[in-house]
Amino acid sequence: MGSSQSALNFGAGPAKLPREVLAEVQGELLSYQSTGMSLMEMSHRSKEYDQINKSSQDLIRELLSVPDNYRIIFIQGGGLGAFAAVAMNLIGRTGSADYAVTGTWSDKAAKEAQKYGTVNLVFPKADKPGSVPDPGQWKLNPDASYFYYCDNETVDGVEFPYIPETNGVPIVVDMSSNIMTRKFDVSKFGVIFGGAQKNIGPAGAVVVIYREDLIGNVMKITPSIFDFGQVAKNNSVLNTPATFSVYVMEKVLQWIKRNGGVGEMENQSAKKSGLLYNTIRNSNNFYSCPIDENVRSRINIPFRVGGPNGDETLEEKFLIEAENRYMYQLKGHRSVGGIRASLYNAVSLSDVELLVKFMKEFQSRNQ
Amino acid sequence: MGSSQSALNFGAGPAKLPREVLAEVQGELLSYQSTGMSLMEMSHRSKEYDQINKSSQDLIRELLSVPDNYRIIFIQGGGLGAFAAVAMNLIGRTGSADYAVTGTWSDKAAKEAQKYGTVNLVFPKADKPGSVPDPGQWKLNPDASYFYYCDNETVDGVEFPYIPETNGVPIVVDMSSNIMTRKFDVSKFGVIFGGAQKNIGPAGAVVVIYREDLIGNVMKITPSIFDFGQVAKNNSVLNTPATFSVYVMEKVLQWIKRNGGVGEMENQSAKKSGLLYNTIRNSNNFYSCPIDENVRSRINIPFRVGGPNGDETLEEKFLIEAENRYMYQLKGHRSVGGIRASLYNAVSLSDVELLVKFMKEFQSRNQ
Repeated sequence: MGSSQSALNFGAGPAKLPREVLAEVQGELLSYQSTGMSLMEMSHRSKEYDQINKSSQDLIRELLSVPDNYRIIFIQGGGLGAFAAVAMNLIGRTGSADYAVTGTWSDKAAKEAQKYGTVNLVFPKADKPGSVPDPGQWKLNPDASYFYYCDNETVDGVEFPYIPETNGVPIVVDMSSNIMTRKFDVSKFGVIFGGAQKNIGPAGAVVVIYREDLIGNVMKITPSIFDFGQVAKNNSVLNTPATFSVYVMEKVLQWIKRNGGVGEMENQSAKKSGLLYNTIRNSNNFYSCPIDENVRSRINIPFRVGGPNGDETLEEKFLIEAENRYMYQLKGHRSVGGIRASLYNAVSLSDVELLVKFMKEFQSRNQ
Repeated sequence: MGSSQSALNFGAGPAKLPREVLAEVQGELLSYQSTGMSLMEMSHRSKEYDQINKSSQDLIRELLSVPDNYRIIFIQGGGLGAFAAVAMNLIGRTGSADYAVTGTWSDKAAKEAQKYGTVNLVFPKADKPGSVPDPGQWKLNPDASYFYYCDNETVDGVEFPYIPETNGVPIVVDMSSNIMTRKFDVSKFGVIFGGAQKNIGPAGAVVVIYREDLIGNVMKITPSIFDFGQVAKNNSVLNTPATFSVYVMEKVLQWIKRNGGVGEMENQSAKKSGLLYNTIRNSNNFYSCPIDENVRSRINIPFRVGGPNGDETLEEKFLIEAENRYMYQLKGHRSVGGIRASLYNAVSLSDVELLVKFMKEFQSRNQ
């Protein structure tokens, strides 16, 4: 494949980035702003990085309409690191927290939090993710330090269609895989976090947005890099961040803004996921998605080929033929199997049209 | 400055990278190995990243002659994260650890470790770093879980000229700023770690080399991402690492190998630092270095201009004139003041020759 041609990248993360962002990064890789230095070679306390750091925060605040009583910080350690960090920062208030486990990532988050306090599952963990019990059945603890959920389960393809009602208990939400893909009311949350490597940048940075008044019960055993208050006080350069990751993220945020902001990302997301789900729906069960209709993710769409239980030989063939058409990273997570198409912001509607075209062809040849 | 010209970058970190490495990165930024995808856009579980991950570990093992009973892992969170991580992994054995505080970073490491156990300073912390007390005066605790020191203090310019004798207590060493700049016997250590952003890559990755038998007392409150055994078991992809940072690091390690390995880096380091220290020594106190001769760093060289206490006006002028000659990031750390030249592997002898030429000119015009 020629270097100017872009692959059709449906990977779950690290994932596709806007081509024009990568071209910008390439253009200034040897000399950022005519300094003769790459951004990678510059101090995190340089005026150049300071500007990037500030602009990234400002863009997130603007794009998500983040209220003034919320701080925006960048930490390292990925989602798994953030699972520990949120617990260490927040669970100390009452010693316990409520968790809604709807898939792989909220399950991991709950396990990580158990190291720091009592974790109450508000409904039993399902053997196989694919639905969210009706909120009327949830057992919420009014004394929980916080209520935790994962807004979009990247592995399983389960996305919340609503913000849960918790009667005043602060909500912590993992939006790693759907942040910046739809508008939402930040003021409904205590903490919002997300690894950058899906919709907003390369791996290496985690965005944390938190309501200032919630910080103050940080556990003494919290590593400084995970102490939200300390990181905020030091403007996210308490120590050396993954500067290059934040730099690319800033460009992706600019790209989102240029392309109509989060509202337009939401429109595109609806079109892209609608097209793919319709193709699955209209395939006479040649393709099938195991997730309840009301919680199907607009972002990560798992499906089986050759019937509801999947035909592994056919799925293997599907993946090979897809790769021959430069459609990459479509393999389902090893814990789930089948196919998974991730439709992050940088994946265009025309990318999905090509995927759908291939799916129809493949069906006509193999059913 | 034109985009093909490289600056003279004496920054302390993130720091200069080999120009040919950056050119390679630039060349494949839009299409890694003709896939039409940037490495940034690829899964950490892809065969491409798997190869980079493996090659990085193999190169570190080869370049440092790491014995078979040591594991090599990559974590996130920078040096400050690693300060907490080493304590959480190791201090549980006896509940206490010995720390040699010789400057800013070992001081921070000791403070971080206090969250997890009893920290014994083997000699009193100096008001002003610049010397290492004679080992005969150290108060070592034979029951310490480990003995900790920082091999090279980046801020203060203090480097150990020897490996301490601890009578069997495992040694943990922070080599963030001098790893891969001289040969050493890995088998003398329990844990060696270093942030990549000085000699081996961009920020975002921390290399940890540890003796396998030392792991087994990890504290229950350790975030999974800092549990060395768990990270190793998952081959450093327990969760998404800062893939791009590891990718660039792999290229820097190849560059070190191509250029004669660690032995040649050591030769170059001796020449570069020798030239700069000689210029300081022969300046009739116009330039002065506050560090004891026997522990002067070959890597980070702090000095004052205009006399032993420094003349801040002259130092400001020095920095401006240096920048006019494309010599960047020479300002001393805010806690120390003055000038600091960092001579990492990617800084060439000719870079230092130009710096020294400027220093002599500047002296002749200003004394």
